[in-house]
Amino acid sequence: MKISVGITGGAGYTAGELIRLLINHPNVKIEFVHSGSNAGNRITDIHEGLMGETDLVFVDSFDLESLNVLFLCSPHGDSRKFMETHVLPETLKIIDLSMDYRHKENAANFVYGLPELNKETIRKTQYLANPGCFATAIQLALLPLASKQLLKNEIHVNAITGSTGAGVKPEVTTHFSWRNNNISVYNVFKHQHLKEIRESLNQLQPNFDNEINFIPVRGNFSRGIFATLYTECDWNLEEIRRLYSDCYKDSAFTFISDNPIDLKQVVNTNKCLLHLEKHTGKLFIVSIIDNLLKGASGQAVQNFNLMFGLDEKTGLNLKSSGF
Amino acid sequence: MKISVGITGGAGYTAGELIRLLINHPNVKIEFVHSGSNAGNRITDIHEGLMGETDLVFVDSFDLESLNVLFLCSPHGDSRKFMETHVLPETLKIIDLSMDYRHKENAANFVYGLPELNKETIRKTQYLANPGCFATAIQLALLPLASKQLLKNEIHVNAITGSTGAGVKPEVTTHFSWRNNNISVYNVFKHQHLKEIRESLNQLQPNFDNEINFIPVRGNFSRGIFATLYTECDWNLEEIRRLYSDCYKDSAFTFISDNPIDLKQVVNTNKCLLHLEKHTGKLFIVSIIDNLLKGASGQAVQNFNLMFGLDEKTGLNLKSSGF
Amino acid sequence: MKISVGITGGAGYTAGELIRLLINHPNVKIEFVHSGSNAGNRITDIHEGLMGETDLVFVDSFDLESLNVLFLCSPHGDSRKFMETHVLPETLKIIDLSMDYRHKENAANFVYGLPELNKETIRKTQYLANPGCFATAIQLALLPLASKQLLKNEIHVNAITGSTGAGVKPEVTTHFSWRNNNISVYNVFKHQHLKEIRESLNQLQPNFDNEINFIPVRGNFSRGIFATLYTECDWNLEEIRRLYSDCYKDSAFTFISDNPIDLKQVVNTNKCLLHLEKHTGKLFIVSIIDNLLKGASGQAVQNFNLMFGLDEKTGLNLKSSGF
Amino acid sequence: MKISVGITGGAGYTAGELIRLLINHPNVKIEFVHSGSNAGNRITDIHEGLMGETDLVFVDSFDLESLNVLFLCSPHGDSRKFMETHVLPETLKIIDLSMDYRHKENAANFVYGLPELNKETIRKTQYLANPGCFATAIQLALLPLASKQLLKNEIHVNAITGSTGAGVKPEVTTHFSWRNNNISVYNVFKHQHLKEIRESLNQLQPNFDNEINFIPVRGNFSRGIFATLYTECDWNLEEIRRLYSDCYKDSAFTFISDNPIDLKQVVNTNKCLLHLEKHTGKLFIVSIIDNLLKGASGQAVQNFNLMFGLDEKTGLNLKSSGF
Repeated sequence: MKISVGITGGAGYTAGELIRLLINHPNVKIEFVHSGSNAGNRITDIHEGLMGETDLVFVDSFDLESLNVLFLCSPHGDSRKFMETHVLPETLKIIDLSMDYRHKENAANFVYGLPELNKETIRKTQYLANPGCFATAIQLALLPLASKQLLKNEIHVNAITGSTGAGVKPEVTTHFSWRNNNISVYNVFKHQHLKEIRESLNQLQPNFDNEINFIPVRGNFSRGIFATLYTECDWNLEEIRRLYSDCYKDSAFTFISDNPIDLKQVVNTNKCLLHLEKHTGKLFIVSIIDNLLKGASGQAVQNFNLMFGLDEKTGLNLKSSGF
Repeated sequence: MKISVGITGGAGYTAGELIRLLINHPNVKIEFVHSGSNAGNRITDIHEGLMGETDLVFVDSFDLESLNVLFLCSPHGDSRKFMETHVLPETLKIIDLSMDYRHKENAANFVYGLPELNKETIRKTQYLANPGCFATAIQLALLPLASKQLLKNEIHVNAITGSTGAGVKPEVTTHFSWRNNNISVYNVFKHQHLKEIRESLNQLQPNFDNEINFIPVRGNFSRGIFATLYTECDWNLEEIRRLYSDCYKDSAFTFISDNPIDLKQVVNTNKCLLHLEKHTGKLFIVSIIDNLLKGASGQAVQNFNLMFGLDEKTGLNLKSSGF
Repeated sequence: MKISVGITGGAGYTAGELIRLLINHPNVKIEFVHSGSNAGNRITDIHEGLMGETDLVFVDSFDLESLNVLFLCSPHGDSRKFMETHVLPETLKIIDLSMDYRHKENAANFVYGLPELNKETIRKTQYLANPGCFATAIQLALLPLASKQLLKNEIHVNAITGSTGAGVKPEVTTHFSWRNNNISVYNVFKHQHLKEIRESLNQLQPNFDNEINFIPVRGNFSRGIFATLYTECDWNLEEIRRLYSDCYKDSAFTFISDNPIDLKQVVNTNKCLLHLEKHTGKLFIVSIIDNLLKGASGQAVQNFNLMFGLDEKTGLNLKSSGF
Repeated sequence: MKISVGITGGAGYTAGELIRLLINHPNVKIEFVHSGSNAGNRITDIHEGLMGETDLVFVDSFDLESLNVLFLCSPHGDSRKFMETHVLPETLKIIDLSMDYRHKENAANFVYGLPELNKETIRKTQYLANPGCFATAIQLALLPLASKQLLKNEIHVNAITGSTGAGVKPEVTTHFSWRNNNISVYNVFKHQHLKEIRESLNQLQPNFDNEINFIPVRGNFSRGIFATLYTECDWNLEEIRRLYSDCYKDSAFTFISDNPIDLKQVVNTNKCLLHLEKHTGKLFIVSIIDNLLKGASGQAVQNFNLMFGLDEKTGLNLKSSGF
């Protein structure tokens, strides 16, 4: 028996990546992919790489009655509108990839879907808010410290993201002629993901209220987030490594690497890799994810697996690209 | 019951890609990965993206007795040396990724492993010579024509390859500072793959003896081959499309696209996509593959599946990268 | 005494490159840069790399009376409109970078501005049509043959262009997420530059009427055109090299290289480099230019120099980027 | 009268870039380019982009008697060896691009060649130590603060460099297949340039002894350094901007930009661009240079101009590449 899945916002990057994953998921039947602007077009006309794998066509209307789960891949703001204007079948599960329900103050009955933090509540929830990409990379680097109340000073974060983080709509900063071989920053010290990061840290370490100095950087590559972080920490490297290994020993996709790591080690996978160094009083952390997978659609599928009682890795044993 | 697999030349790119595939293959147990220079090192120290998936360590000796199949990923020339200096177990199958046994004149009992051409003999062979990357992209573009004796004039081929085609050993032309944003050609009109291409065409159309004007181009990307071809052809576009669709209707990975195609549609997959256009008397063909997958290790696994009676796509339902 | 220069279409790529050149040209004073959409903005807000070099601001009106020369950098079609709707000062020179006046049939009194072909008429003309980028690279590869009536068969051309060739307006095919690491083709066998190429060849070899099979390729880099060409040719390599060297012995920017060439050798310069090989009966040619310089604004300045009696290289001794 | 120039270490990147600059310098005659390994080869065989500009050939011996200045472009360590083993003509000036004489403790009679800091002593010195690339970008971001004793806390620096910073010798981390689309870090918190940075800051603010937390990042591009810095600062943004503008008002190549800046604005120029933001108590600075120009050979020519009484910008009015 397959799980019946629907997808809205079907022409965007996260929907495309979700389709690429679910097409090969053994327990899934994609019932529809909704896109107002592309209704009638083949999925393969819009999403690269699906040729020969699907005959699906975008639709502009859908029936939720027979559906088991709906993935909301619409732009930020549209998910809340959707929830407020639809009467949903009682058992329908919702996985929202936008930021609409991530913050506690207006999360309604949505659970924040970071499995490394909330696995048990994720298993039981009907509604799930999938974390942001930067937020995922940064939280996974810091949660073990928060779990031991070790965050005592400012945190310094620099994270470089691939262009797919900026979405499918063309902008000056995603024009190839501009972005090729170029580097720039944006939203320095005030990126919108800081709020969900802080909420998760406070869930484990309620008294943490120091600055998180976060510099988001636009990189000249398509996929991935490469984050470096440091903060003061009394523990020695061995203790810290043990702490991190312990925290993530049951994680399906988060690993600690003794060796230095580089971005391509996670590209096209759902993994997060962490590398730890101690420099006198400071703990230095590298955290890397694929922004479209562990940072978006891959984590959404991971949450889907948990919500439906499947093995967490189902459909997510992805071949890394290597190059 | 898993199939016991060994790999030689384990530190190279094709071995790395093969490991990334076989790690997730449901019917495979990797018994050893041999590398003289890396013996004792972890696989994950050398091959990107395998962290968390394997604890394998490179070995410098191995036992072939209990093995079902050996993949030879050593440099060109070493496979023949290996075959000539080892007494092999009677039932051991060999899949050779080098060019040593591709040409009929010295193929010994190796079968040329292009499934679209030789599927039945591949199923039955013990020894298999895996095709070259350019050779695969170019043959798949031309074989349907040869099957109808339609090759009647010169063939014009330009094919751009990613840097991984040049192997792991650093050279001037694979230095990032040089290759980034750069384009160049090499072995113009005399690339070593021309011989296996011609042999396959002659297998279907023995009288073909016209020139194949082949310009190999070094591209500034890591993965993939983008080949354009044209030749004179009397048939109209509809007839040609029908011919190609018919030829590849049972192919697991080769598809005809009505829409124009771009390289990234096949990157990180085992697919070959073909696009056909007719311009007055000329048939124009675009053929794209991932040089490390359909052009090397993916096709090797496809051949492995055939040789062991498995479904041809086992372990090869790869998520396309999209970006 | 400086030459007074005006520029229309000032926000586009060719205008930007022209300004970058003219800012350092010892004989030029830029009187105005016109842009309807950017009037009032600083030049440096739009065109990268000019910070600290100019305080110019875009204007939306201008006076042609005191001007010596006007560069038309507007989109194709707008130049003809401009010429037809303005009464121009009698001595005002016009250099048009669009394709509006390139073809003989509607060139009016514009001279086709390829210095290697028309240097003497360029020196004397008041109105000049600047050649297309592909057209420049391809003509320079073939003109010596045409000058000796050596074009006797089909010509095969494949040319890869950087993304700046597609202009500043964002399109699907210039979105970084799509184009990065990607290759594709467009306008196969029917690119709009074929007409001006054929006209120039016929100027030297009137009887040439064979096919020019031209495949334009979109490359994943910003700048440059890398063209490969071949055609049948009886002459031996030494004779051909002598012919080319002779043809271009007085050229300021076109050189023959004995060694193989790669695209970055001309990037950020006004040069065209040619490399010649003979393969049995075929002459193989590589021709490389920077599409924004020799393929557009650099050649426009070269023509400007000729039209005003300056040394052809004035302001064009550009440091090559190397990397 | 031209100044007679010699270059050692002629096959490396900094020598190549130096030649590209000096070829067009109106006051320079290159007497020789020394390279042991390339003696007899043409300069154009090794250094991209010089075709048609020079017939120079590498030499393996040279005469210093008639020389006015020698640029040492040899690897770190070789300059000191050279100075210790040669008797130099009394008036010969030396410009050393290695790190051998940058640090005060063993600078001998070399002056540290950052014109924004030491212009007057540079004018008068015979021997000059050219600064490091990271060191240049970071110092120019911080010197105005040090000049007012405003550095009172830790400084946080993240700087991404192009691959040319790693030199011509191929390494794992400069293999195109590895570096393309990849990001990584190295020498975190202990990069060798920290020492010269601190010495310059202390020259202006002797009491500064806080940490400089510096994370060097390997970028997937060839040219440029993009540095972000922040530190606590009481002054408001207007005051700080006035301070910076004032400090650099006589600088030929260092400019303050009100608008956000991106790396390509300085690529292929000798400029440093700075952008300043204030976020509550923190001053945030972006500093960008071309690592081979302002970070190496361009600054060497700037110093050369100063040492010979030429206008500082002679030969350095370079066309920015823009793309």
